[in-house]
Amino acid sequence: MLTLYSMQSSGNSYKARMLLARLEHTYHLVEIDRFKGENRTPEYLAKNPEGRLPVLELTDGRILAESNAILVYLAEGTRWLPADRFEYAETLRWMFFEQHSHEPAIAEARFWLRFVRGGRELRTHEIDQWMERGYAALALMEQHLSNHDYFVGDRETVADLALYAHTHVAHEGDFDLAGFPGIKRWIARISGNPGHISIDQAHSSVSFGMGPARGSAKV
Amino acid sequence: MLTLYSMQSSGNSYKARMLLARLEHTYHLVEIDRFKGENRTPEYLAKNPEGRLPVLELTDGRILAESNAILVYLAEGTRWLPADRFEYAETLRWMFFEQHSHEPAIAEARFWLRFVRGGRELRTHEIDQWMERGYAALALMEQHLSNHDYFVGDRETVADLALYAHTHVAHEGDFDLAGFPGIKRWIARISGNPGHISIDQAHSSVSFGMGPARGSAKV
Repeated sequence: MLTLYSMQSSGNSYKARMLLARLEHTYHLVEIDRFKGENRTPEYLAKNPEGRLPVLELTDGRILAESNAILVYLAEGTRWLPADRFEYAETLRWMFFEQHSHEPAIAEARFWLRFVRGGRELRTHEIDQWMERGYAALALMEQHLSNHDYFVGDRETVADLALYAHTHVAHEGDFDLAGFPGIKRWIARISGNPGHISIDQAHSSVSFGMGPARGSAKV
Repeated sequence: MLTLYSMQSSGNSYKARMLLARLEHTYHLVEIDRFKGENRTPEYLAKNPEGRLPVLELTDGRILAESNAILVYLAEGTRWLPADRFEYAETLRWMFFEQHSHEPAIAEARFWLRFVRGGRELRTHEIDQWMERGYAALALMEQHLSNHDYFVGDRETVADLALYAHTHVAHEGDFDLAGFPGIKRWIARISGNPGHISIDQAHSSVSFGMGPARGSAKV
């Protein structure tokens, strides 16, 4: 069985849990609490030397890091990954955009402003840059979503899931989506699709974590 | 024929030119000079609203942005993209790492310290963070390369090309590779592979740019 090392509030972890729920895939979930340093234990660093979440462990023990690489791995052969060569490349295009230009601003802002006590004061000097870059990323999304229902083709792909993860909680990082009606319609569309779970909800077919790290699962 | 909108000194553009040279692919090259604002003209922004380089234009006019998505598109069906599902996902894993954790530190440092007059003074407050994050990325690469010849499997893939582009010029962003013998061996390995071109060299089968933007090609 697959094991996902995940943190409940982490947008990057949520991407994988969202797709696994849509695929109705049973898996072990091991909750790793970054705020307790559980991503810095020797056991976890042996799985991912970067200490980032999530990590997917295959049945044979092989490890895959990077949330968007995990999405592509899990989506292979499903309708969440376009078969057409150009649409496939476009899907990756939006996922690279997400990791380069979106997540570093929007997820960082959310992390420090929502989850770290005193984070606003600790990171005052970075907030302007997060806002500038984050709003630029949202503007690009809005431009596309003003006349498209999804990022690639006419159905939900892993590109949508990758971008949804941090966008739908962007307000927790001080971003105001009031000026982005296309994004707001798209958020409603994604969250209304079959099999959707919210970020604070685990998939009902999850098993409790059984990895070497301390495990827990909220269902 | 494919058209690549590229800037000679840009590491992200170089990725695509490196792969096209290895594939012995003839293409139009349109040089876009970011320092003259050519990536901010209405014509270029119509191709890529982000204004980033490179962009690949297909024969039918369709546009693909994001250097690593372009690499995957061009590499399909070639030995630069593993067929095995896990190796393929590992290739993407390193490419997402590159765009999230490597390029934003190492390429940004190179851009401001090497190419922008007064950049060191303008960006003083960011240099420490570039150094911390850039060296962390290099340390992860070194850990892998200390006992592997390439990032995935036992041969060069697009993951190597994506990471080579900015790593081999990291010294231009003040990074010292003296403590990274595995990276140095790997740089020599990649640059010695058949079809390799240097960053200031274009592939000999390039045609002059014929797109709507002003074109030029150095051969």
